[in-house]
Amino acid sequence: MSIYTRLQELNIALPATAAPAASYVMHAQTGNTVFLSGHIAKKEGKPWTGRLGGDMETEEGALAARAVGIDLIATLEAACGGDLNRVRRIVKLTSMVNSAASFTEQHLVTNGASDLFAQVFGTQGKHARSAFGVAQLPLGTCLEIELVAEVD
Amino acid sequence: MSIYTRLQELNIALPATAAPAASYVMHAQTGNTVFLSGHIAKKEGKPWTGRLGGDMETEEGALAARAVGIDLIATLEAACGGDLNRVRRIVKLTSMVNSAASFTEQHLVTNGASDLFAQVFGTQGKHARSAFGVAQLPLGTCLEIELVAEVD
Amino acid sequence: MSIYTRLQELNIALPATAAPAASYVMHAQTGNTVFLSGHIAKKEGKPWTGRLGGDMETEEGALAARAVGIDLIATLEAACGGDLNRVRRIVKLTSMVNSAASFTEQHLVTNGASDLFAQVFGTQGKHARSAFGVAQLPLGTCLEIELVAEVD
Repeated sequence: MSIYTRLQELNIALPATAAPAASYVMHAQTGNTVFLSGHIAKKEGKPWTGRLGGDMETEEGALAARAVGIDLIATLEAACGGDLNRVRRIVKLTSMVNSAASFTEQHLVTNGASDLFAQVFGTQGKHARSAFGVAQLPLGTCLEIELVAEVD
Repeated sequence: MSIYTRLQELNIALPATAAPAASYVMHAQTGNTVFLSGHIAKKEGKPWTGRLGGDMETEEGALAARAVGIDLIATLEAACGGDLNRVRRIVKLTSMVNSAASFTEQHLVTNGASDLFAQVFGTQGKHARSAFGVAQLPLGTCLEIELVAEVD
Repeated sequence: MSIYTRLQELNIALPATAAPAASYVMHAQTGNTVFLSGHIAKKEGKPWTGRLGGDMETEEGALAARAVGIDLIATLEAACGGDLNRVRRIVKLTSMVNSAASFTEQHLVTNGASDLFAQVFGTQGKHARSAFGVAQLPLGTCLEIELVAEVD
């Protein structure tokens, strides 16, 4: 099934991709491997701020992770010249969760993104991943996720 | 020499591999490159909790790093269809150490894993690496390590 | 233009490369992809200590990031057998910023390195990147950066 059919079934509209604010790019390819820059969580286009275990709970964090996942898919589409069906495999996801010292559910937060990739890409969406708690993130956002994918 | 001879000489028995608890996998391959998910430290099968510079000292952290290294080798064996001799090179190791704000020996903790890879894989075990202190980890574990390897 | 002409125009002299202090290496290659170990910030050859949002401000952090970038270029030269013109593309940069809980400008700190790569490598220097705040770093340094590059 086309990735676009799946996105439609899931009622997901891809956003416009963000432009980087400095001397870097949102995706870089070497061979068939694409590296996506860390994407910070956004809500209605603005930084989704918060700290897990502080002013944010796991459920909201998982929603933020899903939102970052959608932004990553939009960037991945751009990396594929506009055609997500060129994605062969989601290879690796790294999830950096803005965490209070007592918060130990980074994996549950990150499931919000992992589940999305499985829903959209099926078996090819199953990825290796790491999730850990960071001291702070750019603009005070609650979450940042980067991704490695294999493309045609 | 076979990797299995080395493991035997080092008296290392590989554990059963962990099953991921969500929509991800413990290893994903693209071309000849395998990405392993972040593996959290375990002691007797349970999360090895603690914070370096808090309730855990560097020596115990290095033991935990060695234990994670053994778990990573077990996953790498699975990624190679059961034959570790297909590993061409340990390429990159990333070590996330649960750290109090005052703890500055993440590199010494991580040596527990780096030394293991050198012992087991010899020259091919020498890897690039990063080690840094994180605010917290899934389930309160003291350490999480991910790995990139080249395989046949 | 040769990378060496650019370095000269920018008045950048590459330092001697650091030797790793344990069972790892500063760079490891698989196919055409080189992974560089995390390089900690140094000032006059000694660890550049500090915490952003604590005893260090963004401007100094960006200088430290530029300094790490120069050290990374020196290691990249070694990885290319002494010839930086073999670098095809700077692919990915990961920047771990030693951060107080209130510091949210990891991206601005990291620009010190990103700008350098754009200056030295031009279009081929534009990389994907992630920047995040860590709880602490080896030897109390303010910054650690690792890099992935494509080489001939």
